[in-house]
Amino acid sequence: MAKIIDGKAIAKKLRAVVATQAAVLKEQDVIPGLAVILVGDDPASEIYVRNKERAAAKVGVNAKTFKYPNDATEAEVLAQVEALNQDETIDAILVQSPVPSQINEQKVQEAILPAKDVDGFHPENSGRLFAGQKGYYPIANTPRGIMTMLRHEEIDLVGKHVVVLGRSILVGRPMFALLQAANASVTLLHRYTPADLRRQLLATADVVVVATGVPNLIMGADLKPGATVIDVGMNRLPGNKLVGDVNFETATKVAGAITPVPGGVGPMTIATLLETTVELAANHHQIELEQGWQNI
Amino acid sequence: MAKIIDGKAIAKKLRAVVATQAAVLKEQDVIPGLAVILVGDDPASEIYVRNKERAAAKVGVNAKTFKYPNDATEAEVLAQVEALNQDETIDAILVQSPVPSQINEQKVQEAILPAKDVDGFHPENSGRLFAGQKGYYPIANTPRGIMTMLRHEEIDLVGKHVVVLGRSILVGRPMFALLQAANASVTLLHRYTPADLRRQLLATADVVVVATGVPNLIMGADLKPGATVIDVGMNRLPGNKLVGDVNFETATKVAGAITPVPGGVGPMTIATLLETTVELAANHHQIELEQGWQNI
Repeated sequence: MAKIIDGKAIAKKLRAVVATQAAVLKEQDVIPGLAVILVGDDPASEIYVRNKERAAAKVGVNAKTFKYPNDATEAEVLAQVEALNQDETIDAILVQSPVPSQINEQKVQEAILPAKDVDGFHPENSGRLFAGQKGYYPIANTPRGIMTMLRHEEIDLVGKHVVVLGRSILVGRPMFALLQAANASVTLLHRYTPADLRRQLLATADVVVVATGVPNLIMGADLKPGATVIDVGMNRLPGNKLVGDVNFETATKVAGAITPVPGGVGPMTIATLLETTVELAANHHQIELEQGWQNI
Repeated sequence: MAKIIDGKAIAKKLRAVVATQAAVLKEQDVIPGLAVILVGDDPASEIYVRNKERAAAKVGVNAKTFKYPNDATEAEVLAQVEALNQDETIDAILVQSPVPSQINEQKVQEAILPAKDVDGFHPENSGRLFAGQKGYYPIANTPRGIMTMLRHEEIDLVGKHVVVLGRSILVGRPMFALLQAANASVTLLHRYTPADLRRQLLATADVVVVATGVPNLIMGADLKPGATVIDVGMNRLPGNKLVGDVNFETATKVAGAITPVPGGVGPMTIATLLETTVELAANHHQIELEQGWQNI
């Protein structure tokens, strides 16, 4: 039976480190400021934003939400981004996805100052990641949190075959870049990959990261025995049950280690968002911090 | 026996299209200007630069080389980039690699205005490529030229397994991004990939792009029968023979199509550089052009 990777417990350790870092900043009168722009009244987004605010408060990050109605104009949102770019008390800005269709999400993302781009979506930041540049720049928090989990679990990546399923800007692509930078041999698959090719490639995969939004896409029989399985899926089934993209019951019988849903990747994402916020605040005020994940 | 992909012939077609595009610009008094900064006296670089100048002249691009001695300072080179950024007659700038060690190549690359970054190395441009953004931005010319060859040869990429060997900023990484954008299922391998894993993955590869600088790394027995093989290698053997990274003799017996060395990828790179230069000039002067590769 696979080891269950306890994302909740690792996230708790990471949040403790982030709280220590925030305390270091506070000694120098810096309170990290995270601005969340929320447009419209998507109930799931409202829950996410509230969770972010609560988790931020607990580690000493000051999260402020800027709420706009469903019919807000792009100009209004861009003006808000501009004001936050200038605001000395704000170190990190994110726009909660999705935004209503009258607003060009990419345009709004790119208006965020790269130094405050806590999601790492700005082309200047994602370009640095893709190029494997040294130095600090923000990186998308879900894949970065997954890298922290893999390090914590001491999963060997060098030269190993890692298959990433799903190529979103939020997860799949930056995940590819991070795994590649860790010297893994990475394959990126997506909706155009035929099922038989997917199975052939999964059969040689030492690590699998699944972020497709398709429940039960991966079954135990698809996995190489002993593989590490990271399930980014969050699918709400009829009856309100939350499941990932991997069939947990069959996968646990074959995998060496696996993240559950819920309690796997999800908690790591918010903890990593706070980690990035504190780092951006430290950079902004030129205060040196130790890297969070090295201490968990 | 594999079909030999005639890069020289395809490059000739592409250059003819580029010449037509340059003629359209000339009607509006625009002559595309390409600035090449060459630092030091590497003999191979001098040959490349001379070839670029000659090929440019033939299609109606004005290429100017700015030569600096081996002991040029970073500040001198940065000042040259800045002057070229401001120069209205220059539409495209490239720094010939390698540069002497006292100069930070990345810093110089990033000083080039993204709108004149003909190699597509600026993080703003490579970030757009990585994110799969729409709209025009310059893309590294070697992988872009390979995509033109694959289109010309009508190689099906959608869902297919493509293995890219080598992950340089010049070739492997942008190649990955372009193939991925074309909906291929892409694996990126490199020096840390064990040989047995490499062979396992090559056995399922419909297309292989090899850019490692290791002669004979890939033998015919490594290939899936019928695979398309793109050899980016340019290795000078004792006795001055030029070979690629693929063992041509054995590979031609297994592959469906293969590029020779020389006469494969090499000619496409210079033709694509000129294509990009003309596009940047058209953008700069807001003149609309048809896309070159669609006409070859």
